[in-house]
Amino acid sequence: MKKLGVCVIGVGEMGKRHAENFRRHVPEAQLVAIADVSAQRVQQVADELEIEHAYTSIEEALQRKDIHAVVIATPDKFHAKVIQAAAVAGKDILCEKPLAITLEEAQGALEAVSRAGVRLQVGFMRRYDPAYAAARKRLEAGEIGTPLVFKSVGRDKDEPPLAAYQSGVNGMLFYTNTIHDFDIARWLMQDEVAEVHSYTTSTIRPELANYGDVVAGVVNLKFCKGGIGNIESHAQALYAYDVRTEIIGSKGSVFIGSVHGAPATFLSSAGASAVLADHFLSRFADAYLVEARTFVNTVLTGKPPQVNGEDGLRALEIAVAAEKSHMSGQPCKVTRQAAD
Amino acid sequence: MKKLGVCVIGVGEMGKRHAENFRRHVPEAQLVAIADVSAQRVQQVADELEIEHAYTSIEEALQRKDIHAVVIATPDKFHAKVIQAAAVAGKDILCEKPLAITLEEAQGALEAVSRAGVRLQVGFMRRYDPAYAAARKRLEAGEIGTPLVFKSVGRDKDEPPLAAYQSGVNGMLFYTNTIHDFDIARWLMQDEVAEVHSYTTSTIRPELANYGDVVAGVVNLKFCKGGIGNIESHAQALYAYDVRTEIIGSKGSVFIGSVHGAPATFLSSAGASAVLADHFLSRFADAYLVEARTFVNTVLTGKPPQVNGEDGLRALEIAVAAEKSHMSGQPCKVTRQAAD
Amino acid sequence: MKKLGVCVIGVGEMGKRHAENFRRHVPEAQLVAIADVSAQRVQQVADELEIEHAYTSIEEALQRKDIHAVVIATPDKFHAKVIQAAAVAGKDILCEKPLAITLEEAQGALEAVSRAGVRLQVGFMRRYDPAYAAARKRLEAGEIGTPLVFKSVGRDKDEPPLAAYQSGVNGMLFYTNTIHDFDIARWLMQDEVAEVHSYTTSTIRPELANYGDVVAGVVNLKFCKGGIGNIESHAQALYAYDVRTEIIGSKGSVFIGSVHGAPATFLSSAGASAVLADHFLSRFADAYLVEARTFVNTVLTGKPPQVNGEDGLRALEIAVAAEKSHMSGQPCKVTRQAAD
Amino acid sequence: MKKLGVCVIGVGEMGKRHAENFRRHVPEAQLVAIADVSAQRVQQVADELEIEHAYTSIEEALQRKDIHAVVIATPDKFHAKVIQAAAVAGKDILCEKPLAITLEEAQGALEAVSRAGVRLQVGFMRRYDPAYAAARKRLEAGEIGTPLVFKSVGRDKDEPPLAAYQSGVNGMLFYTNTIHDFDIARWLMQDEVAEVHSYTTSTIRPELANYGDVVAGVVNLKFCKGGIGNIESHAQALYAYDVRTEIIGSKGSVFIGSVHGAPATFLSSAGASAVLADHFLSRFADAYLVEARTFVNTVLTGKPPQVNGEDGLRALEIAVAAEKSHMSGQPCKVTRQAAD
Repeated sequence: MKKLGVCVIGVGEMGKRHAENFRRHVPEAQLVAIADVSAQRVQQVADELEIEHAYTSIEEALQRKDIHAVVIATPDKFHAKVIQAAAVAGKDILCEKPLAITLEEAQGALEAVSRAGVRLQVGFMRRYDPAYAAARKRLEAGEIGTPLVFKSVGRDKDEPPLAAYQSGVNGMLFYTNTIHDFDIARWLMQDEVAEVHSYTTSTIRPELANYGDVVAGVVNLKFCKGGIGNIESHAQALYAYDVRTEIIGSKGSVFIGSVHGAPATFLSSAGASAVLADHFLSRFADAYLVEARTFVNTVLTGKPPQVNGEDGLRALEIAVAAEKSHMSGQPCKVTRQAAD
Repeated sequence: MKKLGVCVIGVGEMGKRHAENFRRHVPEAQLVAIADVSAQRVQQVADELEIEHAYTSIEEALQRKDIHAVVIATPDKFHAKVIQAAAVAGKDILCEKPLAITLEEAQGALEAVSRAGVRLQVGFMRRYDPAYAAARKRLEAGEIGTPLVFKSVGRDKDEPPLAAYQSGVNGMLFYTNTIHDFDIARWLMQDEVAEVHSYTTSTIRPELANYGDVVAGVVNLKFCKGGIGNIESHAQALYAYDVRTEIIGSKGSVFIGSVHGAPATFLSSAGASAVLADHFLSRFADAYLVEARTFVNTVLTGKPPQVNGEDGLRALEIAVAAEKSHMSGQPCKVTRQAAD
Repeated sequence: MKKLGVCVIGVGEMGKRHAENFRRHVPEAQLVAIADVSAQRVQQVADELEIEHAYTSIEEALQRKDIHAVVIATPDKFHAKVIQAAAVAGKDILCEKPLAITLEEAQGALEAVSRAGVRLQVGFMRRYDPAYAAARKRLEAGEIGTPLVFKSVGRDKDEPPLAAYQSGVNGMLFYTNTIHDFDIARWLMQDEVAEVHSYTTSTIRPELANYGDVVAGVVNLKFCKGGIGNIESHAQALYAYDVRTEIIGSKGSVFIGSVHGAPATFLSSAGASAVLADHFLSRFADAYLVEARTFVNTVLTGKPPQVNGEDGLRALEIAVAAEKSHMSGQPCKVTRQAAD
Repeated sequence: MKKLGVCVIGVGEMGKRHAENFRRHVPEAQLVAIADVSAQRVQQVADELEIEHAYTSIEEALQRKDIHAVVIATPDKFHAKVIQAAAVAGKDILCEKPLAITLEEAQGALEAVSRAGVRLQVGFMRRYDPAYAAARKRLEAGEIGTPLVFKSVGRDKDEPPLAAYQSGVNGMLFYTNTIHDFDIARWLMQDEVAEVHSYTTSTIRPELANYGDVVAGVVNLKFCKGGIGNIESHAQALYAYDVRTEIIGSKGSVFIGSVHGAPATFLSSAGASAVLADHFLSRFADAYLVEARTFVNTVLTGKPPQVNGEDGLRALEIAVAAEKSHMSGQPCKVTRQAAD
């Protein structure tokens, strides 16, 4: 079987993990090249992972004929632009979440994808986590009856340095963090979100207001078929990387996730201390790998993408509404865009 | 030491437990009498617990000189009226939550208590649960720094029979169930709630709308000092009686509660099945007992009540705002009443 | 119904709890008197619990006609002697474990009980713990098929003071601590123990050898029907009071117990710290209470004792064999005594 | 850097996983060839993993100059012989546990390794599991003081087919399964085992006696410095693949392992059912990978093997003693061989 030629665009923390997965753990893929605006970073990653080609120009990389697909892991604000460039160049695309940081850009990206007839998968990797996947399967089988209440918590561990906000690499909390839960909410509830209401807090870090961001937020959800929900996101919970979801149905419930990392507990007369999960790249290591394999597999076999551009758009619409509610203090309807 | 003469008013499920606690497990108290509108029920409980006097008239019971204090466990809607009668009769009062089901009645009750100079403790028994009490202690000691995010879940197990709604014995979900979380939110965050927003759902039981009630609700909270939170309440989660609270602070966090009942797990090739908590009277058996002992002790020693009328009023104000938000779909400010 | 007149003999930590249970929480019993060799202790407990009669002479207490039953909570080495005295006095008996500390004394006690025609229940309170009781029920129902492997761990928390060993109040580890597991092994495996092998360790406290005791021990078990097992006991594990049992059957398994006390967890960047169980009197508070109620109930209704003298004898036989194995280093058959 | 040329010998379930790890996830290694007596199996695995060379003759494979190291995953009984052949051929060796199934063969293998001056690492992969590794680190740092009691449980899930016993592919339970715990016991207690005593059971499968094997066993351990311990192994516990270890020290304790697999829990009115660990290849997927990387890395950098032949020999000595005790019913001293 011919291998899928892949280029990873953006090799910061996330992009490097994608590069490593495609380079080492997806035998059906050939990681032809990586690209990054930082010449130093791109060369260092290329050396470490023994990748032949390293570009500082995306355009140049996209000209290679032996690159059939790209993985986009640039800062969030460039996602849409890079999708468009890749689509024009005829490459299939796996794009990190969020699809874009405005609805207009998202629409533009989806139109470019549609015109070019390329495939687009959005990086909602939680769908590939064994626990989430098992839950979805049992929900589809009707095991918990009608899902009524969706609850999700996503807490990052360490305080992000101020530079991370100043650089504008990531979108606001709802776009970078909560968007995973918005996607999972749609996927597990098998329904769309009609309206949201959010409160946020930044009292322990008021300077984030300068960057349009917050420390933590709670988002109430109203689903189209009558279900409700709440998502809490926290940028710096300190104790762990803690992602958990609960769905209460009419016949049963499902809980996903655990704060525990390695199953080791240390005990003394002062109590017990456990090893907690500390980073999304370790908690979801397998999910990222299955995501990569799925992408390569669907492209090579011509199956439709599993998490497509519309999924990216729908989650973004919820994030936009959640941010509006955070600004206005009022509930905000989720306005549906045409998904091309 | 002279014993405190006690009368329990209302001996349904909850009142019977109070009667049992005061009769058997609070040696400083003497359960002189119980009262209930149902002659059959009051006699049966009196027989079972060997209580000397059983009344079907509250007024008659309140005339006894050897009753120094009453425990009110009538339907929610009568709480305020019975408080007033007991206050006029000069009895100290332990009243089940909620204090009342309207702010006007609550004010009336508090004024009567104040005029009569009697003591009033409100039955927010979670404050006496070992886990909640340990959390509060560590929060007070500053162990988690500034509390930022308050999360709480309160799910009852079995579907309440329709008759329970028809009888109007309990107030709407936010008054009967969520009110515990409203109190705990204030107590653990050491702050007041400024505004709430709620969504509710009744899709699996639309007939509850006839009784002004809902199956489940999520309530976003904004605290006065800038913290935020969310509470979810569910009247019939089926799998367990499940009460859990999490508080995320600037330096650490605390999780309270567990879905597990008896620590026994049964395993087979089909997986593991654990014994889950099944009822608030077993999960919080100790809390109710400590509550009873605390009441008797503070009355006998002349100390101020630990959970007083203002606490009851403040929680009620939040419930009222949450219900308004559920009706209007808009966020609703919590309006503060004078606590006499 | 006439109340059962009870006298608790020995009101140290354990006896005081029994006194409290019978005084306050067993309405069918009337705690007439308590007895203890220490005049100061017996008076203090009598005052605190408002018990009318306090004796320093067991003989004197046993002469009371209004005492129908005794609860024996003296040092282990006096159990057999007090059983005999109580039997001669015609009292029904609830005796703390172990039944005795030698097989000869145990036989003597059982013969006295038999001659006098009184009832004897042995204080293996774990049988009344909700988790153990649920396990037994499911084992009886055949849910795990044939039980094959019995595992049990019993770890006390704090280092016992040397005085506890010097006083000789308790028997050696296998008689005081492990004997609970010996009983549970028989009860849950529904089989008898044929042979044992034990190793012990005292390296961190070699002076215990002077008192014939050890810090910790492991006991391999061979059951008559072919099952096997192992019990570990530890006198000072420091981190918690930790009692857990696992039974592996041919169709399924059951795990009983949890190191967790109050369901509260505190988290910081240093990890998670949970509230662990700290004492057998809190972990098994309910079990002691149900034990007391069961005793009173079986006596008043004339039903046979639930944990009888033979149960006490059988567990003791295993402890004797385990101690012999610890001395000799060889496996040791469990020799069965006639249970009168 | 030149890559390490590797050949995996034996590509059944375990060998195939090694082949996959070396082929895909260890970039410093080049999986040159695989070998297996089954022509069909070796070709199938070679095809699936895209390995260039597939041999049915080990001797032939060992003649390749571009193979610098071999991974031995043949049936246990051939380990020693293949080690000798590989040593003679000058290859570095990673050998699955156990080193051999008799002490004589183990000695022969070690002598061959020593004569040839090649490296030998034994596949005690648990040492590379994050939880075990974290425990060892904290034990070395003295965090739990002196380790006193070692407890370990290793339960396989499904009933092995009779053919597995008939084929003689694996050694008896103590050699195949318990040997992991024997190694971990030495490694974590930082001590040697002086004596063991074991009971075994096969009542639910008496035909195993024909193959010298048992369904389950418990092994009491006495360590040289005075510590004690117990290990339980079970070939078919049904409910899960369940590996857990506890070490009780003079200052604290450490618990390793968890029966839980994917962190998903399904709840209904019938209780909770969790996803449990189901196979050693999933529970220890990372450990096998780190083991492979460590082997390649120590070879390429000329560092001494981390789990060497003596470690393999010492664990085997304990297994031999445990089997003797199982046969004789008596405790059995662990006789130390010279480790060349």
